[in-house]
Amino acid sequence: MGTAPLRVGIAGLGTVGAGVLKLLATQGDLLARRVGRPMVVTSVSARDRNRDRGVDLSSVRWYDNAVDLASDDQVDVVVELIGGSDGIAARTVETALAHGKHVVTANKALLAHHGTALATQAEAQGLTLAFEAAVAGGIPVIKGLREGLAANQVREVHGILNGTCNYILTEMRTTGRDFGDVLAEAQAKGYAEADPSFDIDGVDAAHKLAILTSVAFGTRVDFANVHVEGIRHISALDIDYAGQLGYRIKLLGIARRTENGIEQRVNPCMVPVGSLIAATDGVFNAVVADSDFADKVALVGRGAGAGPTASAVVADLVDIAIGRRTPTFAVPAGQLAPLTPAPLSARRGRYYVRLMVVDRPGVIADVAAALRDQNVSMESFLQRGRAPGEAVPVVLTTHDTEEVAMLRALAVIGGLDAVQETPRMIRIEDY
Amino acid sequence: MGTAPLRVGIAGLGTVGAGVLKLLATQGDLLARRVGRPMVVTSVSARDRNRDRGVDLSSVRWYDNAVDLASDDQVDVVVELIGGSDGIAARTVETALAHGKHVVTANKALLAHHGTALATQAEAQGLTLAFEAAVAGGIPVIKGLREGLAANQVREVHGILNGTCNYILTEMRTTGRDFGDVLAEAQAKGYAEADPSFDIDGVDAAHKLAILTSVAFGTRVDFANVHVEGIRHISALDIDYAGQLGYRIKLLGIARRTENGIEQRVNPCMVPVGSLIAATDGVFNAVVADSDFADKVALVGRGAGAGPTASAVVADLVDIAIGRRTPTFAVPAGQLAPLTPAPLSARRGRYYVRLMVVDRPGVIADVAAALRDQNVSMESFLQRGRAPGEAVPVVLTTHDTEEVAMLRALAVIGGLDAVQETPRMIRIEDY
Repeated sequence: MGTAPLRVGIAGLGTVGAGVLKLLATQGDLLARRVGRPMVVTSVSARDRNRDRGVDLSSVRWYDNAVDLASDDQVDVVVELIGGSDGIAARTVETALAHGKHVVTANKALLAHHGTALATQAEAQGLTLAFEAAVAGGIPVIKGLREGLAANQVREVHGILNGTCNYILTEMRTTGRDFGDVLAEAQAKGYAEADPSFDIDGVDAAHKLAILTSVAFGTRVDFANVHVEGIRHISALDIDYAGQLGYRIKLLGIARRTENGIEQRVNPCMVPVGSLIAATDGVFNAVVADSDFADKVALVGRGAGAGPTASAVVADLVDIAIGRRTPTFAVPAGQLAPLTPAPLSARRGRYYVRLMVVDRPGVIADVAAALRDQNVSMESFLQRGRAPGEAVPVVLTTHDTEEVAMLRALAVIGGLDAVQETPRMIRIEDY
Repeated sequence: MGTAPLRVGIAGLGTVGAGVLKLLATQGDLLARRVGRPMVVTSVSARDRNRDRGVDLSSVRWYDNAVDLASDDQVDVVVELIGGSDGIAARTVETALAHGKHVVTANKALLAHHGTALATQAEAQGLTLAFEAAVAGGIPVIKGLREGLAANQVREVHGILNGTCNYILTEMRTTGRDFGDVLAEAQAKGYAEADPSFDIDGVDAAHKLAILTSVAFGTRVDFANVHVEGIRHISALDIDYAGQLGYRIKLLGIARRTENGIEQRVNPCMVPVGSLIAATDGVFNAVVADSDFADKVALVGRGAGAGPTASAVVADLVDIAIGRRTPTFAVPAGQLAPLTPAPLSARRGRYYVRLMVVDRPGVIADVAAALRDQNVSMESFLQRGRAPGEAVPVVLTTHDTEEVAMLRALAVIGGLDAVQETPRMIRIEDY
């Protein structure tokens, strides 16, 4: 690639953009040794010109509109850090590619919705569309899957992909407090957004999972077929019971090859206390790939924050500067297979169920009968305390069963007179 | 790189070599999609032509001598799986490079001793010398450090690098048995070699650490300056006490940037029970890199075995087939800095000490005085049971102190009349 400088335009100077500026300013010597050519920020775009970003931007061209930056002749790579699945971010990336520029992005929503199309556009022109920062922040999971495990058929990839949810669940467990309480505190500390729904309803994790699925299985990015459940319904009681049963509750993204197709889901799961995924607490992320030759490989680290995300963005810039090329989603975009979604109802596994029932004779017999009628075999049952005639929580776990049977049984159980609330179900994954 | 086949010669058809043959035979379609050109084994060399390796080798050229394979005109890449720091393995790699062939190797001993020279030879000719399989088997730690964390100054890299030792220590903990007993069983099961000294004395881990150090810090491979301690002296008692103190004992390789230079050591350490490294049990390996922007990133997986090691070998072949180039040790070999070794005596940290002392009044006061005289502050002290006049084990832990002070105190303590055996010291690392 020669020794001419790689000219970088950064669209979006929020936390991550400022982190990228800082990193490039700090690591000049190190990067020069590793890359063999300078990487220079020539252009930026952001709303506010006057905010102090800790780096001298006086010699950098400034754009008010990122789309204009994307057609700047003196930019070789556009770093898109605007965010959002459509609108200005999408137009910036499309414009950059149309003008023959490589793109590095941290935008999981954009890739989840338009990943295949953008990869096709990039590859048609021999350009790189890189997105290490879009999934699991500073952890090189995309490179690990796409290149490190290139020789493997992946059976499953799963992980903790949203630090906000993991922080909330960890706090709930360690303090015993309830969801709303911990969420409010997380918002006050800046760990959760003012509108937290993208995080806590699992959408952010689902965006990331859709990307991982494509890289792992060589399928087109198919966000529409990700089953998404968030953590709003997880109660302090569930977390307490999970502990008694030897589990932790984690919001997991899971993409699994099954005989029916590829299952993609984001959902709270119970995982055994001794597992690596259970031990990944707070704002940390973890991704585990299970593949045919390498077996299980886990990557753990910080999934967000200015430093880790900038690290991932610049790793992508280094690849571009050195001329290291890889098909965007591990195989050329034109060869990505359509994803055949496996119906979640075909999942086979164990379940945890929490019921609020009136404490009176015969209720449990009715619950047990509903399970039996669907051939669901109960593994354990727990009713702590007694309050005759009043509502008490009851939890049970099942042996392996099909989800469709479980759902039918729950529909019957939910309709029993003595059952006071919608039954809550959490999938158990015995990692 | 065009679409002509990449012609592969495999030198050495032991477990890993057979694994590579099997992988290439199994994953043809997948690799073709990812690489865009076939990868074909054209030549092999091994001692025994008649052993069944589960793959048809009738159309492959066979060499009795690997060095001859290394000059075969119809080989583009030589995969060296012979092993050993010198002799035939070294001559094979040198010959391959001299004949303009890329080299992929799993040989940590060779790289630990001759890594910088071989990298220099390879890079002078624009050839790749790749060795993902040499460190931590199927876990892409070299790629992760060299490319995934390319934008970072690494502060420290540490890990569990030898599965045999980790298996033995895990078994000792879970069964309460002593070292010799568990080693014998590991040998019977094939987890330890007939001559286990390379593993249990830490040499194998030290080879791997020397390689990691170079990649992490941009320094010449400097095996001679790795401080090496193995696990022969770890007793069931130590493991039991570690548990009581909230620790696990792990054989760690640690490379750390300090104000005095770079510290490289392989040694048994106590690590907190809740840490990822403590939870990495059995034959699993783990590598943790702590760097300035990405913070801590951990990679965990299988560090040995035919499948995982073949996965790493073929990942390197994929890089070569696609034309993805990287300086061998992250920066060009000519720019690798000489490593300034930090004296281990300057380590600051906590220590665990086990003594065998005669149980009589005043002994502990003498021990405490020896520590005080070196300004070593005791954190905890434990003598379980009593046996007046007889030898009893006593363990203590210290607050942060310099190793040189600790060693001086231990020399005094070891000279006390009442102290019956050489004091044993284990470093505590509060990861």
